[in-house]
Amino acid sequence: MGLILRVNVGTGVIAAAPPGDEYMVLGGRSLTSRIVADEVPPTCHPLSAHNKLVIAAGLFAGTMAPSGGRISIGAKSPLTGGIKEANGGGETARKLARLGYRAIIIEGKPQSQELFILKIDRSGAALIPGEKYREMGNYQLAASLLDEYGNKVAIISNGPLGERLASSAGITNTDREGVPSRFCGRGGLGAVMGSKGVKAIVIDDSGASEINFHDQQEFKSICQMLYQKMTGHPSMEAFAKFGTAGVLNYVNEVGGLPTRNFRTGRFEQAMQINGDKLRETILARGGEGDPSHACMTGCIIKCSNIYPDQNGKALVSPLEFETLGLLGSNLGIGDLDTIARMNYVCNDLGVDTIEIGVAIGVAMEAGIIPFGDGPAAEKMLEEVRQGTALGRVIAEGALITGRVFGVERVPVVKGQGMPAYDPRAVKGNGVTYATSPMGADHTAANTIRGKDHHIPEGRAAISSRSQAMIAAYDSLGFCVFTGAVINENLSAVARMATALTGQPQPDDYMYQLGVSVLKNELEFNRQAGFTKVHDRIPGYMLEEKLPPNDLVFDVTLEDLDNVHNR
Amino acid sequence: MGLILRVNVGTGVIAAAPPGDEYMVLGGRSLTSRIVADEVPPTCHPLSAHNKLVIAAGLFAGTMAPSGGRISIGAKSPLTGGIKEANGGGETARKLARLGYRAIIIEGKPQSQELFILKIDRSGAALIPGEKYREMGNYQLAASLLDEYGNKVAIISNGPLGERLASSAGITNTDREGVPSRFCGRGGLGAVMGSKGVKAIVIDDSGASEINFHDQQEFKSICQMLYQKMTGHPSMEAFAKFGTAGVLNYVNEVGGLPTRNFRTGRFEQAMQINGDKLRETILARGGEGDPSHACMTGCIIKCSNIYPDQNGKALVSPLEFETLGLLGSNLGIGDLDTIARMNYVCNDLGVDTIEIGVAIGVAMEAGIIPFGDGPAAEKMLEEVRQGTALGRVIAEGALITGRVFGVERVPVVKGQGMPAYDPRAVKGNGVTYATSPMGADHTAANTIRGKDHHIPEGRAAISSRSQAMIAAYDSLGFCVFTGAVINENLSAVARMATALTGQPQPDDYMYQLGVSVLKNELEFNRQAGFTKVHDRIPGYMLEEKLPPNDLVFDVTLEDLDNVHNR
Repeated sequence: MGLILRVNVGTGVIAAAPPGDEYMVLGGRSLTSRIVADEVPPTCHPLSAHNKLVIAAGLFAGTMAPSGGRISIGAKSPLTGGIKEANGGGETARKLARLGYRAIIIEGKPQSQELFILKIDRSGAALIPGEKYREMGNYQLAASLLDEYGNKVAIISNGPLGERLASSAGITNTDREGVPSRFCGRGGLGAVMGSKGVKAIVIDDSGASEINFHDQQEFKSICQMLYQKMTGHPSMEAFAKFGTAGVLNYVNEVGGLPTRNFRTGRFEQAMQINGDKLRETILARGGEGDPSHACMTGCIIKCSNIYPDQNGKALVSPLEFETLGLLGSNLGIGDLDTIARMNYVCNDLGVDTIEIGVAIGVAMEAGIIPFGDGPAAEKMLEEVRQGTALGRVIAEGALITGRVFGVERVPVVKGQGMPAYDPRAVKGNGVTYATSPMGADHTAANTIRGKDHHIPEGRAAISSRSQAMIAAYDSLGFCVFTGAVINENLSAVARMATALTGQPQPDDYMYQLGVSVLKNELEFNRQAGFTKVHDRIPGYMLEEKLPPNDLVFDVTLEDLDNVHNR
Repeated sequence: MGLILRVNVGTGVIAAAPPGDEYMVLGGRSLTSRIVADEVPPTCHPLSAHNKLVIAAGLFAGTMAPSGGRISIGAKSPLTGGIKEANGGGETARKLARLGYRAIIIEGKPQSQELFILKIDRSGAALIPGEKYREMGNYQLAASLLDEYGNKVAIISNGPLGERLASSAGITNTDREGVPSRFCGRGGLGAVMGSKGVKAIVIDDSGASEINFHDQQEFKSICQMLYQKMTGHPSMEAFAKFGTAGVLNYVNEVGGLPTRNFRTGRFEQAMQINGDKLRETILARGGEGDPSHACMTGCIIKCSNIYPDQNGKALVSPLEFETLGLLGSNLGIGDLDTIARMNYVCNDLGVDTIEIGVAIGVAMEAGIIPFGDGPAAEKMLEEVRQGTALGRVIAEGALITGRVFGVERVPVVKGQGMPAYDPRAVKGNGVTYATSPMGADHTAANTIRGKDHHIPEGRAAISSRSQAMIAAYDSLGFCVFTGAVINENLSAVARMATALTGQPQPDDYMYQLGVSVLKNELEFNRQAGFTKVHDRIPGYMLEEKLPPNDLVFDVTLEDLDNVHNR
C-alpha cells in the first residue's frame, strides 16, 4: 500500500519507508492527522522545526473511484494553533499514489534561506535548488515548472505569501490542464510549507506502475455501480450547471449570505453574483470560458468552471461560492469581474479567498476602506502582494486584522475566518464552525443541503454526524459532492476499502473511520490548549440580530459541548 | 469603608453604594480582581459591553502608610484575554480614598462615539462631555484638565492609543506635580477605558473628610515604626540614588539583560544606559533634572527621577529600568537621550514601554528596521502616533507584530511581552512569566533580588510564594520596594489591617490574602479558556542557548504546574 516519503529539510536526508502497521489502511486526512498527532508536539510554534507538513493522497486516489482522487495536507496550523487538514482536487494525489507514495512528510527547518523544489518521480525524490522561483506567483511558477519538467507532471505549489509565512497562505495543486487552481486553502498551511523552504513539489508519474488491489474486479464493479448512479443524478447535474455558485441564491434566501462583514444575511445585489448570472456570463462571453469543468481525472461532478474576461480570455478558474460570498457580498461588491480579478490575485499569491475576504470585511468595518468599493478592495489586495504593513495585516487573516484595527465584530472561530454562511441563519454550519477541530470551516461539515436552518434544535446532531462522515470522505479522497450517492451506498464503500486493502471493514466503515480521525484531532487540540471555551461562536453573534430574519446564534452550549460525545 | 461608584456609560446612570460584605476588607488588586471575576463573563470580548474597567485604591491608600497609596486597575485584558490588574503610584488612589470611594466600576458601552470626562468630587460624580480632548496626548491632557479643574485635582487618563483601542495602551495617573507619569501600564487596560468612551477621570478631593479608622492610634504607631525602619535602610537608599535603573548592571552581569530581541543577555553598551550613567547625566545636566523623586504622597523610596535634556529641561519622568531594557538594550540602543525621548512619546500616547519595546524588537528581528538604529526606532514610534498600518501593528504588541511579520522568536507569555529579564538567565522570573495569571509580567513576582538565577531548581517555590505576597502588596497599595522592611514585619501589617478595618487578621494575613486573590484570578482565566499549556515559556527559549552563559529555560514542567498548588 505504498511508502511514506520523509524529507528532512534541515539535514537534507530523504528516505522512503513502508508505513507502520497502524497506518496501513489510512489515507488522506486520516493519515495526515494521524501523523501530525503522532509526530508534532501540540504546543510547538507552527513555524518552528518541530512542525511537519504532511501530504497524503486519499486512500482511493489513483484508482477508478468516481471523484475519488483528492489530496490532503496537514500540519499544526499557524492560523488556528490547532491541527489542520485541508484538501483539494487536481492531479497531485493520483500521481503520488501511482508512484507508490502514501504520504510525504516534510520536516525540520532549513539551515539556509534558500528555496527548494522537491522533485518526485519513479527514480525517487530529490531537493533541487529553487531560488530562481522566489516570490514567483503560482501561475507563472506552474507554467515554468511545466516547461522545465514536462507538461505531464503535477505540481503542489506555494505562492509568495506562503514564502512570507502569512497565516492566510494556502497550498495549490495543478488540475488536468496544469493550472494551479485546486487549493488546500485553509489554515495557513502555505506558511508551514514556506517555513520548510519548499517552493513546490513536482510529481512526475511517467512510467509508474498501476495501483495494487486486493481484489481489483470487485473494486471496479462497485465503482461502475457508483458511476452509474451518479451519472445524471439531479444533485450532480446542478453542480455541473451552476457549480458551487448554485447555492448562493438559496443561502441568500435563507438570509445567511454574509453581507458587509456579516452585518446582514441578504445581499441586495445577489442576482449580480449568483449561479445563474455566473453561468450566463460565461456562456455569453464564450472564448476560453467554461461553465462546467472537471478538477481532476475521474471527476464526475464538474462543479469547476473557467471564468473568462470580456474578451473571452480565461480570467480565473474556478470562481466558487465561498469566493463570491466573501470577496463579493461580504465586501458589498456585486460585480463578478471584480471578484474574479481578486480571486486570480489570491490564487497567484497563494492565499485563501475566504480568509482574505473575511479580513478585508473586517478592515472595511474599521473604516479603512468603504464597503462596496471594488477598486479599493483590489488596491488592498495589491498591498497584500507588495507586502506593505497593511498588506501583511490582511494576509495574516481576520483575527489579526481585527486586533490591529480594534474591531469587536470579527467573525472567526479558533482564529479562522468564517465561510459564506452566517451561523445565525445557517445554524448547523454554526455548530460546525464552533466545534470542528479545524476552526470555522464549512468543509468540516456543511449542513446547507439540509433544512430548518433557523431552528437551533437538532442542528448539533446533524453537524456531529456530518463531521464524522466528512472526515471519512476526506480520508478516502472522495469529493463531498458525491454525497447524494455515496451516503446511500455506505456498505459499498466499505467493500471498496476491503477490495483495495484486503482488510475487512464493517458496513458503517466511513462513520467509524471519521470518528477515529476526529478523536485524534480533538486530542491534539486538547494538548495544544483548546478547551470547550474555544468551541464557541463569537459573543456578538449571540446578541446582534441578523437581518432580515433577526436571528441570533442560539444553539445551546449543552448541544455544542455534546457534539463530540458520539 | 467607602462606597463603590458604578458608572454605566451605556445608560449614563451613575450610582454609589456600599460594597457587599464580601468586599468589605478588600482593596486594590484584591478588589479589582474580585469584581472582575464576579461581574465580567470570562469569555466576553475585552472591548465589548460585557467587560468592565474597575479602579480601586489600595486598602491603605489615603492613610499614613509608608509608600502605601498605590492604585489598581483591572479588567479582562485585550492583550492576554485573561484577567488583568495593573497598578501604579501617583495621587489618584489617595484622593479617591479620601472621597470615600473604594472602587470605580465603569461598565456598559457608550451609545454614541462621544468622549467623556468622569469628574468625581465631594458632591458626587458626573460624566462631562470631553470631545474636545479627543486624540490629545496625556501631557497636554493633564495640563488642560489641571487648568480647567484646578491644580489640586488628580487625574487618571487615557492617551490617544487607548482611544484607538490599542492592546498596548496603559492608563496613567498624575503624580504630586500633576505630571501624568504613573502608569498602570500593562495588559492593554487603556483600550478597555477607550472602549468605554472615558478619556479621563478627574478626582477633586477638596473638602474631603479624613479616612475612618477602627483604631487610628494603633495604625499610626505601626506606620511610625515602619517609617523608622525604612528610613536609611540600605536597600531603599539604593533606590533613591539610582532608581530602578540601579538593577541594570546586575541583570547585565547575570547575563539576563534582553539585548537585540532577547538574542543575548549582555549588552556591550550597558554602561551607557545603567543607573550610574543615568544619575551622572541627570546631575551633570542639572536644571529640572532630579535623580530622586517621589511618585506619591507618603513615598519613602523615591525611586522615580526626572531626566532632563541637554539644556536641563525635563525630558521625561521617570526613566525606569524596564524602559532602559526594552527600548534600550533590547533594540541595541545605547543612548539615554534616545530612550528618554521614546519614553516621553510612549507616555504621551499612553502605551506601555515594555510592550512597545518588545514589539519593536520583534519588528527589528523581522528586518523591518535594523537593530541599534535609534532614529529608525523613533520613526517607528512616530508611526504609532500617526496610526499608520505599521504603527497600529506595533501598538498591538509583540505577539501581533510577530504574527504579522512571520517571526518565530517572539518573547511573550499569554500574549504579553516579556519585561527586561531574560527567563533563561533569571529563571525565577521565567516561572513568574509562565505561571502568573497576568501573563509575562515581572510585577507579578520579580525574583531578581534573590540569587542562584541560573539554577532551575527552587525557582518555582520562590516565584510561588512571591506571587502571593505581591498580590497582597498590590491589594494593600504598598509599593513593592518597601519589601525589605515589610517582609520582616508581616504581623505588623496584619495589625495595620485590623486597626483600619476592625476585622481581626492572622499573622500571615498578607500571604493568605494574596493566595485568595490568585485563586480568583486563576479561576477567571480557567473559565476564559486557559490551561497549563498556556503556563509556558515560548518553545525557542527551551532550545536556543542564551549567550554569554549558554542558558536555556529549564525549570521543569512539573515545577511550573505546581506553582499554584499552595
